Amino acid sequence: MHQVISGINAVKENLRQGKGIVELLIAKGKKIERLREILDVATQKKIPIRFKDRLYLDKISPDISHQGIIAILSKYSYFHLDDLVEFSIANESKGLLIAADHITDTGNLGSLIRTAEFFGVQGLILPKDRSASITDAVHKRSAGGSAYLPVTRVANLARALKQLADENLWIVGAAGESNTNIYEFDWNRDLVLVLGNESKGLSRVVRDQCHHLVSIPRLGYLTSINVSVAAGVILSEIVRQRGNSRD
Amino acid sequence: MHQVISGINAVKENLRQGKGIVELLIAKGKKIERLREILDVATQKKIPIRFKDRLYLDKISPDISHQGIIAILSKYSYFHLDDLVEFSIANESKGLLIAADHITDTGNLGSLIRTAEFFGVQGLILPKDRSASITDAVHKRSAGGSAYLPVTRVANLARALKQLADENLWIVGAAGESNTNIYEFDWNRDLVLVLGNESKGLSRVVRDQCHHLVSIPRLGYLTSINVSVAAGVILSEIVRQRGNSRD
Repeated sequence: MHQVISGINAVKENLRQGKGIVELLIAKGKKIERLREILDVATQKKIPIRFKDRLYLDKISPDISHQGIIAILSKYSYFHLDDLVEFSIANESKGLLIAADHITDTGNLGSLIRTAEFFGVQGLILPKDRSASITDAVHKRSAGGSAYLPVTRVANLARALKQLADENLWIVGAAGESNTNIYEFDWNRDLVLVLGNESKGLSRVVRDQCHHLVSIPRLGYLTSINVSVAAGVILSEIVRQRGNSRD
Repeated sequence: MHQVISGINAVKENLRQGKGIVELLIAKGKKIERLREILDVATQKKIPIRFKDRLYLDKISPDISHQGIIAILSKYSYFHLDDLVEFSIANESKGLLIAADHITDTGNLGSLIRTAEFFGVQGLILPKDRSASITDAVHKRSAGGSAYLPVTRVANLARALKQLADENLWIVGAAGESNTNIYEFDWNRDLVLVLGNESKGLSRVVRDQCHHLVSIPRLGYLTSINVSVAAGVILSEIVRQRGNSRD
Protein backbone atom coordinates (compact mmCIF):
# COMPACT_ATOMS: atom_id res chain seq x y z
CA MET A 1 0.00 0.00 0.00
CA HIS A 2 1.10 3.56 -0.55
CA GLN A 3 1.37 6.18 2.18
CA VAL A 4 -1.92 7.79 3.01
CA ILE A 5 -3.66 10.94 4.24
CA SER A 6 -6.85 10.27 6.23
CA GLY A 7 -9.95 12.29 7.04
CA ILE A 8 -11.96 14.97 5.29
CA ASN A 9 -9.94 18.04 6.25
CA ALA A 10 -6.51 16.48 5.77
CA VAL A 11 -7.48 15.18 2.36
CA LYS A 12 -9.02 18.55 1.42
CA GLU A 13 -5.83 20.37 2.43
CA ASN A 14 -3.56 18.00 0.54
CA LEU A 15 -5.74 18.17 -2.51
CA ARG A 16 -5.46 21.98 -2.44
CA GLN A 17 -1.67 21.72 -2.23
CA GLY A 18 -1.86 19.11 -4.97
CA LYS A 19 0.94 16.95 -3.50
CA GLY A 20 1.41 13.58 -5.24
CA ILE A 21 -2.05 12.15 -4.59
CA VAL A 22 -2.44 9.00 -6.66
CA GLU A 23 -6.08 8.36 -5.88
CA LEU A 24 -8.89 8.76 -3.37
CA LEU A 25 -10.52 5.90 -1.48
CA ILE A 26 -14.04 6.40 -0.19
CA ALA A 27 -15.83 3.96 2.10
CA LYS A 28 -18.78 2.19 0.49
CA GLY A 29 -22.04 3.63 1.85
CA LYS A 30 -20.39 6.90 2.88
CA LYS A 31 -22.79 9.83 2.45
CA ILE A 32 -21.48 11.98 -0.34
CA GLU A 33 -22.70 15.45 0.88
CA ARG A 34 -19.70 16.36 3.03
CA LEU A 35 -17.31 15.17 0.32
CA ARG A 36 -18.72 17.27 -2.50
CA GLU A 37 -15.91 19.84 -2.46
CA ILE A 38 -13.27 17.10 -2.40
CA LEU A 39 -14.92 15.22 -5.25
CA ASP A 40 -15.13 18.40 -7.31
CA VAL A 41 -11.42 19.15 -6.93
CA ALA A 42 -10.44 15.51 -7.49
CA THR A 43 -12.51 15.31 -10.67
CA GLN A 44 -11.03 18.57 -11.89
CA LYS A 45 -7.49 17.29 -11.22
CA LYS A 46 -8.39 13.93 -12.80
CA ILE A 47 -7.54 11.97 -9.64
CA PRO A 48 -9.16 8.52 -9.71
CA ILE A 49 -11.77 7.75 -7.02
CA ARG A 50 -12.49 4.24 -5.75
CA PHE A 51 -15.10 2.92 -3.36
CA LYS A 52 -13.85 0.21 -0.94
CA ASP A 53 -15.19 -1.58 2.15
CA ARG A 54 -14.76 0.37 5.38
CA LEU A 55 -12.62 -2.48 6.76
CA TYR A 56 -10.08 -1.85 4.02
CA LEU A 57 -9.88 1.82 4.94
CA ASP A 58 -9.54 0.88 8.62
CA LYS A 59 -6.50 -1.24 7.78
CA ILE A 60 -4.84 1.42 5.67
CA SER A 61 -5.38 4.04 8.35
CA PRO A 62 -5.48 2.10 11.64
CA ASP A 63 -4.53 4.91 14.00
CA ILE A 64 -6.24 7.95 12.50
CA SER A 65 -10.00 8.33 12.12
CA HIS A 66 -10.45 8.42 8.37
CA GLN A 67 -14.11 9.52 8.26
CA GLY A 68 -14.61 7.31 5.23
CA ILE A 69 -12.06 9.04 3.03
CA ILE A 70 -8.39 8.40 2.41
CA ALA A 71 -5.97 9.89 -0.11
CA ILE A 72 -3.25 7.58 -1.41
CA LEU A 73 0.15 9.22 -1.86
CA SER A 74 2.70 8.00 -4.33
CA LYS A 75 5.15 6.57 -1.77
CA TYR A 76 4.64 2.88 -1.02
CA SER A 77 4.15 1.33 2.41
CA TYR A 78 3.46 -2.31 3.22
CA PHE A 79 0.61 -3.97 5.11
CA HIS A 80 1.07 -6.21 8.17
CA LEU A 81 0.66 -9.97 7.89
CA ASP A 82 -2.24 -9.80 10.38
CA ASP A 83 -4.06 -7.41 8.05
CA LEU A 84 -3.85 -9.91 5.21
CA VAL A 85 -5.27 -12.63 7.44
CA GLU A 86 -8.19 -10.34 8.29
CA PHE A 87 -8.79 -9.51 4.63
CA SER A 88 -8.84 -13.19 3.77
CA ILE A 89 -11.33 -13.94 6.56
CA ALA A 90 -13.54 -10.95 5.70
CA ASN A 91 -13.67 -11.96 2.04
CA GLU A 92 -17.11 -13.13 0.91
CA SER A 93 -15.67 -16.29 -0.66
CA LYS A 94 -12.98 -18.55 0.81
CA GLY A 95 -9.69 -16.88 1.77
CA LEU A 96 -6.92 -16.73 -0.83
CA LEU A 97 -3.44 -15.34 -0.22
CA ILE A 98 -0.23 -15.79 -2.22
CA ALA A 99 3.25 -16.22 -0.78
CA ALA A 100 6.14 -15.75 -3.25
CA ASP A 101 9.34 -17.55 -2.25
CA HIS A 102 12.14 -15.15 -3.25
CA ILE A 103 11.05 -13.81 -6.65
CA THR A 104 13.97 -11.61 -7.64
CA ASP A 105 12.88 -10.30 -11.06
CA THR A 106 10.86 -7.06 -10.84
CA GLY A 107 9.04 -7.80 -14.10
CA ASN A 108 7.90 -11.16 -12.76
CA LEU A 109 6.80 -9.63 -9.46
CA GLY A 110 4.85 -6.88 -11.24
CA SER A 111 3.15 -9.36 -13.52
CA LEU A 112 2.38 -11.62 -10.54
CA ILE A 113 0.71 -8.70 -8.71
CA ARG A 114 -1.36 -7.85 -11.79
CA THR A 115 -2.45 -11.47 -12.16
CA ALA A 116 -3.22 -11.92 -8.46
CA GLU A 117 -5.32 -8.76 -8.36
CA PHE A 118 -7.24 -9.74 -11.48
CA PHE A 119 -8.26 -13.05 -9.87
CA GLY A 120 -9.28 -11.45 -6.56
CA VAL A 121 -6.40 -12.57 -4.32
CA GLN A 122 -6.65 -10.81 -0.95
CA GLY A 123 -2.95 -10.28 -0.33
CA LEU A 124 0.63 -11.10 -1.28
CA ILE A 125 3.38 -12.13 1.15
CA LEU A 126 7.01 -11.46 0.24
CA PRO A 127 10.16 -12.23 2.20
CA LYS A 128 12.30 -9.17 3.04
CA ASP A 129 15.57 -10.74 1.89
CA ARG A 130 16.47 -12.06 -1.55
CA SER A 131 13.20 -10.84 -3.03
CA ALA A 132 12.27 -7.94 -5.29
CA SER A 133 10.37 -5.25 -3.39
CA ILE A 134 7.66 -2.90 -4.61
CA THR A 135 9.57 -0.44 -6.79
CA ASP A 136 8.45 1.86 -9.59
CA ALA A 137 9.32 -0.88 -12.10
CA VAL A 138 7.02 -3.26 -10.22
CA HIS A 139 4.20 -0.69 -10.09
CA LYS A 140 4.49 -0.21 -13.83
CA ARG A 141 4.52 -3.91 -14.68
CA SER A 142 1.60 -4.53 -12.33
CA ALA A 143 -0.49 -2.29 -14.63
CA GLY A 144 -2.21 -0.69 -11.64
CA GLY A 145 -2.52 -3.89 -9.62
CA SER A 146 -0.13 -2.69 -6.91
CA ALA A 147 -2.62 0.02 -5.95
CA TYR A 148 -5.26 -2.64 -5.17
CA LEU A 149 -3.44 -5.73 -3.91
CA PRO A 150 -2.31 -5.56 -0.26
CA VAL A 151 1.35 -6.64 0.06
CA THR A 152 3.24 -7.52 3.23
CA ARG A 153 6.92 -8.28 3.79
CA VAL A 154 8.05 -10.80 6.39
CA ALA A 155 11.48 -11.49 7.89
CA ASN A 156 11.05 -15.26 7.60
CA LEU A 157 8.66 -16.73 5.06
CA ALA A 158 8.60 -20.25 6.56
CA ARG A 159 7.73 -18.84 10.00
CA ALA A 160 5.00 -16.64 8.45
CA LEU A 161 3.49 -19.71 6.77
CA LYS A 162 3.53 -21.55 10.08
CA GLN A 163 1.65 -18.64 11.64
CA LEU A 164 -0.89 -18.68 8.80
CA ALA A 165 -1.35 -22.45 9.24
CA ASP A 166 -2.09 -21.77 12.91
CA GLU A 167 -4.79 -19.33 11.69
CA ASN A 168 -6.40 -22.32 9.93
CA LEU A 169 -5.23 -21.46 6.44
CA TRP A 170 -4.12 -24.36 4.24
CA ILE A 171 -0.61 -23.93 2.87
CA VAL A 172 -0.48 -25.20 -0.73
CA GLY A 173 2.77 -25.12 -2.67
CA ALA A 174 3.19 -25.26 -6.46
CA ALA A 175 5.82 -27.86 -7.33
CA GLY A 176 6.27 -29.40 -10.79
CA GLU A 177 7.10 -32.84 -9.40
CA SER A 178 3.92 -33.24 -7.34
CA ASN A 179 1.61 -36.12 -8.32
CA THR A 180 -1.48 -34.11 -7.40
CA ASN A 181 -2.50 -31.94 -10.30
CA ILE A 182 -4.28 -28.62 -9.89
CA TYR A 183 -7.52 -29.91 -11.45
CA GLU A 184 -8.02 -32.75 -8.97
CA PHE A 185 -7.06 -30.73 -5.90
CA ASP A 186 -10.02 -29.37 -3.91
CA TRP A 187 -9.55 -25.58 -3.71
CA ASN A 188 -12.70 -24.93 -1.67
CA ARG A 189 -10.86 -24.00 1.52
CA ASP A 190 -9.13 -20.95 2.99
CA LEU A 191 -5.60 -21.12 1.70
CA VAL A 192 -2.21 -19.63 0.95
CA LEU A 193 -0.80 -20.49 -2.49
CA VAL A 194 3.00 -20.66 -2.29
CA LEU A 195 4.96 -20.00 -5.48
CA GLY A 196 8.65 -20.69 -5.92
CA ASN A 197 11.63 -18.79 -7.19
CA GLU A 198 12.05 -18.43 -11.00
CA SER A 199 14.91 -20.91 -11.21
CA LYS A 200 15.06 -22.84 -7.94
CA GLY A 201 11.39 -23.45 -7.15
CA LEU A 202 10.37 -23.74 -3.52
CA SER A 203 13.12 -23.70 -0.91
CA ARG A 204 13.24 -26.69 1.45
CA VAL A 205 12.19 -24.81 4.59
CA VAL A 206 9.19 -23.32 2.78
CA ARG A 207 8.26 -26.65 1.24
CA ASP A 208 8.31 -28.20 4.71
CA GLN A 209 5.53 -25.82 5.75
CA CYS A 210 3.22 -26.88 2.91
CA HIS A 211 0.27 -29.16 3.71
CA HIS A 212 -0.04 -30.04 0.03
CA LEU A 213 2.00 -29.74 -3.15
CA VAL A 214 0.27 -29.42 -6.53
CA SER A 215 1.54 -29.42 -10.09
CA ILE A 216 0.37 -28.00 -13.42
CA PRO A 217 0.07 -30.80 -16.00
CA ARG A 218 2.10 -30.22 -19.13
CA LEU A 219 1.93 -31.58 -22.67
CA GLY A 220 5.08 -30.09 -24.23
CA TYR A 221 8.80 -30.50 -23.73
CA LEU A 222 9.35 -27.60 -21.36
CA THR A 223 8.98 -28.45 -17.69
CA SER A 224 8.25 -24.98 -16.32
CA ILE A 225 6.45 -21.73 -17.12
CA ASN A 226 6.93 -18.16 -15.90
CA VAL A 227 5.86 -17.65 -12.28
CA SER A 228 3.10 -15.15 -13.14
CA VAL A 229 1.73 -17.54 -15.78
CA ALA A 230 1.80 -20.39 -13.26
CA ALA A 231 -0.02 -18.13 -10.79
CA GLY A 232 -2.65 -17.26 -13.41
CA VAL A 233 -3.21 -20.91 -14.31
CA ILE A 234 -3.69 -21.98 -10.68
CA LEU A 235 -5.77 -18.95 -9.68
CA SER A 236 -8.04 -19.54 -12.67
CA GLU A 237 -8.62 -23.12 -11.53
CA ILE A 238 -9.40 -21.86 -8.02
CA VAL A 239 -11.92 -19.34 -9.40
CA ARG A 240 -13.46 -22.05 -11.59
CA GLN A 241 -13.89 -24.48 -8.70
CA ARG A 242 -15.21 -21.84 -6.32
CA GLY A 243 -17.55 -20.52 -8.98
CA ASN A 244 -17.49 -17.03 -7.56
CA SER A 245 -16.31 -14.79 -10.35
CA ARG A 246 -17.58 -11.25 -10.71
CA ASP A 247 -18.83 -11.75 -14.25
CA MET B 1 12.24 -23.12 -36.65
CA HIS B 2 15.97 -22.69 -37.09
CA GLN B 3 17.88 -23.47 -40.27
CA VAL B 4 18.76 -27.11 -40.59
CA ILE B 5 21.24 -29.63 -41.99
CA SER B 6 19.67 -32.96 -43.00
CA GLY B 7 21.02 -36.46 -43.47
CA ILE B 8 23.72 -38.57 -41.86
CA ASN B 9 26.71 -37.39 -43.86
CA ALA B 10 25.82 -33.71 -43.90
CA VAL B 11 25.22 -33.74 -40.15
CA LYS B 12 28.46 -35.64 -39.58
CA GLU B 13 30.42 -33.10 -41.64
CA ASN B 14 28.91 -30.11 -39.90
CA LEU B 15 29.49 -31.65 -36.51
CA ARG B 16 33.15 -32.11 -37.42
CA GLN B 17 33.40 -28.46 -38.45
CA GLY B 18 31.53 -27.61 -35.27
CA LYS B 19 29.48 -24.81 -36.89
CA GLY B 20 26.72 -23.40 -34.66
CA ILE B 21 24.71 -26.58 -34.20
CA VAL B 22 22.11 -25.95 -31.51
CA GLU B 23 20.78 -29.49 -31.28
CA LEU B 24 20.18 -32.76 -33.09
CA LEU B 25 16.75 -34.16 -33.93
CA ILE B 26 16.45 -37.90 -34.45
CA ALA B 27 13.31 -39.61 -35.73
CA LYS B 28 11.56 -41.81 -33.17
CA GLY B 29 12.19 -45.48 -33.99
CA LYS B 30 15.32 -44.71 -36.01
CA LYS B 31 17.92 -47.47 -35.63
CA ILE B 32 20.84 -46.08 -33.70
CA GLU B 33 23.72 -48.13 -35.26
CA ARG B 34 24.50 -45.82 -38.20
CA LEU B 35 24.31 -42.77 -35.92
CA ARG B 36 26.82 -43.98 -33.32
CA GLU B 37 29.66 -41.76 -34.51
CA ILE B 38 27.37 -38.70 -34.65
CA LEU B 39 26.01 -39.39 -31.19
CA ASP B 40 29.52 -39.78 -29.79
CA VAL B 41 30.67 -36.42 -31.17
CA ALA B 42 27.43 -34.69 -30.13
CA THR B 43 27.70 -36.02 -26.58
CA GLN B 44 31.32 -34.96 -26.42
CA LYS B 45 30.41 -31.44 -27.63
CA LYS B 46 27.43 -31.38 -25.24
CA ILE B 47 24.93 -30.81 -28.08
CA PRO B 48 21.40 -31.74 -26.94
CA ILE B 49 19.67 -34.62 -28.74
CA ARG B 50 15.89 -34.92 -29.07
CA PHE B 51 13.68 -37.64 -30.49
CA LYS B 52 10.70 -36.42 -32.55
CA ASP B 53 8.06 -37.94 -34.82
CA ARG B 54 9.25 -38.53 -38.40
CA LEU B 55 6.48 -36.19 -39.64
CA TYR B 56 8.09 -33.35 -37.75
CA LEU B 57 11.45 -34.02 -39.40
CA ASP B 58 9.72 -34.24 -42.80
CA LYS B 59 8.32 -30.76 -42.27
CA ILE B 60 11.60 -29.25 -41.19
CA SER B 61 13.41 -30.79 -44.14
CA PRO B 62 10.76 -31.15 -46.87
CA ASP B 63 13.05 -31.22 -49.89
CA ILE B 64 16.08 -33.14 -48.65
CA SER B 65 16.01 -36.76 -47.50
CA HIS B 66 16.88 -36.47 -43.81
CA GLN B 67 17.47 -40.19 -43.11
CA GLY B 68 15.97 -39.68 -39.67
CA ILE B 69 18.52 -37.12 -38.51
CA ILE B 70 18.55 -33.32 -38.65
CA ALA B 71 20.93 -30.80 -37.09
CA ILE B 72 19.39 -27.50 -36.03
CA LEU B 73 21.55 -24.44 -36.70
CA SER B 74 21.34 -21.27 -34.69
CA LYS B 75 19.72 -19.13 -37.42
CA TYR B 76 15.93 -19.08 -37.29
CA SER B 77 13.56 -19.89 -40.15
CA TYR B 78 9.79 -20.04 -40.05
CA PHE B 79 7.34 -22.83 -40.87
CA HIS B 80 4.56 -22.54 -43.46
CA LEU B 81 0.95 -22.19 -42.39
CA ASP B 82 0.12 -25.48 -44.15
CA ASP B 83 2.70 -27.25 -41.95
CA LEU B 84 0.97 -26.02 -38.81
CA VAL B 85 -2.35 -27.30 -40.10
CA GLU B 86 -0.78 -30.71 -40.69
CA PHE B 87 0.78 -30.75 -37.21
CA SER B 88 -2.58 -29.93 -35.68
CA ILE B 89 -4.28 -32.72 -37.65
CA ALA B 90 -1.54 -35.25 -36.90
CA ASN B 91 -1.69 -34.49 -33.18
CA GLU B 92 -3.05 -37.38 -31.10
CA SER B 93 -5.51 -35.09 -29.30
CA LYS B 94 -7.64 -32.35 -30.90
CA GLY B 95 -5.78 -29.68 -32.86
CA LEU B 96 -4.65 -26.54 -31.04
CA LEU B 97 -2.95 -23.56 -32.69
CA ILE B 98 -2.47 -20.01 -31.42
CA ALA B 99 -2.70 -16.83 -33.49
CA ALA B 100 -1.29 -13.68 -31.89
CA ASP B 101 -2.79 -10.45 -33.22
CA HIS B 102 0.15 -8.01 -33.35
CA ILE B 103 2.06 -8.67 -30.13
CA THR B 104 4.83 -6.07 -30.26
CA ASP B 105 6.72 -6.72 -27.00
CA THR B 106 9.49 -9.33 -27.39
CA GLY B 107 9.26 -10.31 -23.72
CA ASN B 108 5.56 -11.03 -24.09
CA LEU B 109 6.12 -13.01 -27.28
CA GLY B 110 8.89 -15.08 -25.67
CA SER B 111 6.78 -15.81 -22.62
CA LEU B 112 3.82 -16.68 -24.86
CA ILE B 113 5.97 -19.19 -26.78
CA ARG B 114 7.19 -20.77 -23.53
CA THR B 115 3.63 -21.06 -22.25
CA ALA B 116 2.25 -22.43 -25.53
CA GLU B 117 4.98 -25.07 -25.75
CA PHE B 118 4.46 -26.13 -22.13
CA PHE B 119 0.77 -26.79 -22.81
CA GLY B 120 1.42 -28.71 -26.04
CA VAL B 121 0.23 -26.16 -28.61
CA GLN B 122 1.13 -27.37 -32.12
CA GLY B 123 2.02 -24.03 -33.67
CA LEU B 124 1.96 -20.24 -33.41
CA ILE B 125 0.80 -17.86 -36.15
CA LEU B 126 2.18 -14.31 -36.24
CA PRO B 127 1.44 -11.50 -38.68
CA LYS B 128 4.50 -10.19 -40.54
CA ASP B 129 3.73 -6.53 -39.89
CA ARG B 130 3.36 -4.75 -36.56
CA SER B 131 4.42 -7.84 -34.63
CA ALA B 132 7.58 -8.85 -32.82
CA SER B 133 9.46 -11.55 -34.73
CA ILE B 134 11.61 -14.39 -33.40
CA THR B 135 14.76 -12.59 -32.23
CA ASP B 136 17.45 -13.58 -29.73
CA ALA B 137 15.51 -11.74 -27.02
CA VAL B 138 12.46 -13.85 -27.83
CA HIS B 139 14.50 -17.09 -27.81
CA LYS B 140 15.85 -16.19 -24.39
CA ARG B 141 12.50 -15.29 -22.87
CA SER B 142 10.94 -18.43 -24.32
CA ALA B 143 13.32 -20.44 -22.08
CA GLY B 144 13.93 -22.96 -24.86
CA GLY B 145 10.35 -23.05 -26.10
CA SER B 146 11.22 -21.47 -29.46
CA ALA B 147 13.24 -24.59 -30.34
CA TYR B 148 10.14 -26.76 -29.98
CA LEU B 149 7.15 -24.67 -31.00
CA PRO B 150 6.64 -24.30 -34.77
CA VAL B 151 6.05 -20.64 -35.70
CA THR B 152 4.74 -19.25 -38.98
CA ARG B 153 4.41 -15.69 -40.22
CA VAL B 154 1.56 -14.61 -42.46
CA ALA B 155 1.05 -11.48 -44.55
CA ASN B 156 -2.57 -11.12 -43.46
CA LEU B 157 -3.76 -12.66 -40.20
CA ALA B 158 -7.48 -12.33 -40.94
CA ARG B 159 -7.04 -14.10 -44.28
CA ALA B 160 -4.97 -16.85 -42.62
CA LEU B 161 -7.76 -17.39 -40.09
CA LYS B 162 -10.28 -17.65 -42.91
CA GLN B 163 -8.10 -20.31 -44.52
CA LEU B 164 -7.86 -22.20 -41.22
CA ALA B 165 -11.64 -22.02 -40.83
CA ASP B 166 -11.93 -23.56 -44.30
CA GLU B 167 -9.70 -26.38 -42.99
CA ASN B 168 -12.40 -27.05 -40.37
CA LEU B 169 -10.62 -25.41 -37.47
CA TRP B 170 -12.76 -23.38 -35.06
CA ILE B 171 -11.52 -19.81 -34.63
CA VAL B 172 -11.90 -18.75 -30.97
CA GLY B 173 -10.91 -15.26 -29.88
CA ALA B 174 -10.13 -14.11 -26.33
CA ALA B 175 -12.06 -10.92 -25.59
CA GLY B 176 -12.72 -9.55 -22.11
CA GLU B 177 -16.22 -8.36 -22.97
CA SER B 178 -17.53 -11.74 -24.13
CA ASN B 179 -20.39 -13.24 -22.12
CA THR B 180 -19.13 -16.78 -22.68
CA ASN B 181 -16.51 -17.61 -20.10
CA ILE B 182 -13.66 -20.04 -20.72
CA TYR B 183 -15.01 -22.61 -18.24
CA GLU B 184 -18.38 -23.04 -19.96
CA PHE B 185 -17.00 -23.06 -23.50
CA ASP B 186 -16.56 -26.56 -24.99
CA TRP B 187 -12.89 -26.86 -26.01
CA ASN B 188 -13.17 -30.40 -27.37
CA ARG B 189 -12.75 -29.43 -31.02
CA ASP B 190 -9.89 -28.61 -33.39
CA LEU B 191 -9.26 -24.91 -32.92
CA VAL B 192 -7.17 -21.79 -33.26
CA LEU B 193 -7.02 -19.62 -30.13
CA VAL B 194 -6.68 -15.96 -31.15
CA LEU B 195 -5.03 -13.58 -28.67
CA GLY B 196 -5.07 -9.81 -28.96
CA ASN B 197 -2.53 -7.05 -28.80
CA GLU B 198 -1.24 -6.00 -25.33
CA SER B 199 -3.16 -2.74 -25.29
CA LYS B 200 -5.76 -2.86 -28.06
CA GLY B 201 -7.05 -6.44 -27.87
CA LEU B 202 -8.31 -8.04 -31.06
CA SER B 203 -8.48 -5.91 -34.18
CA ARG B 204 -11.87 -5.69 -35.89
CA VAL B 205 -10.93 -7.63 -39.01
CA VAL B 206 -9.49 -10.45 -36.89
CA ARG B 207 -12.49 -10.45 -34.57
CA ASP B 208 -14.77 -10.76 -37.61
CA GLN B 209 -13.11 -14.09 -38.42
CA CYS B 210 -13.81 -15.58 -34.97
CA HIS B 211 -16.62 -18.14 -34.65
CA HIS B 212 -16.67 -17.58 -30.88
CA LEU B 213 -15.38 -15.06 -28.36
CA VAL B 214 -14.55 -16.14 -24.82
CA SER B 215 -13.55 -14.23 -21.69
CA ILE B 216 -11.60 -14.99 -18.52
CA PRO B 217 -13.75 -14.28 -15.45
CA ARG B 218 -12.19 -11.82 -13.02
CA LEU B 219 -12.72 -11.04 -9.36
CA GLY B 220 -10.48 -8.02 -8.88
CA TYR B 221 -10.46 -4.44 -10.10
CA LEU B 222 -8.13 -4.90 -13.05
CA THR B 223 -9.84 -5.81 -16.30
CA SER B 224 -6.90 -7.43 -18.11
CA ILE B 225 -3.85 -9.61 -17.58
CA ASN B 226 -0.62 -10.06 -19.51
CA VAL B 227 -1.10 -11.86 -22.84
CA SER B 228 1.10 -14.84 -21.86
CA VAL B 229 -0.79 -15.19 -18.57
CA ALA B 230 -4.10 -15.09 -20.45
CA ALA B 231 -2.75 -17.72 -22.83
CA GLY B 232 -1.69 -19.93 -19.90
CA VAL B 233 -5.08 -19.61 -18.22
CA ILE B 234 -7.01 -20.56 -21.36
CA LEU B 235 -4.61 -23.33 -22.43
CA SER B 236 -4.82 -24.83 -18.94
CA GLU B 237 -8.61 -24.94 -19.21
CA ILE B 238 -8.31 -26.59 -22.63
CA VAL B 239 -5.94 -29.24 -21.23
CA ARG B 240 -8.27 -29.79 -18.27
CA GLN B 241 -11.33 -30.30 -20.47
CA ARG B 242 -9.53 -32.52 -22.95
CA GLY B 243 -7.98 -34.53 -20.12
CA ASN B 244 -4.93 -35.39 -22.18
CA SER B 245 -1.98 -34.12 -20.21
CA ARG B 246 1.33 -35.96 -20.29
CA ASP B 247 1.45 -36.40 -16.50
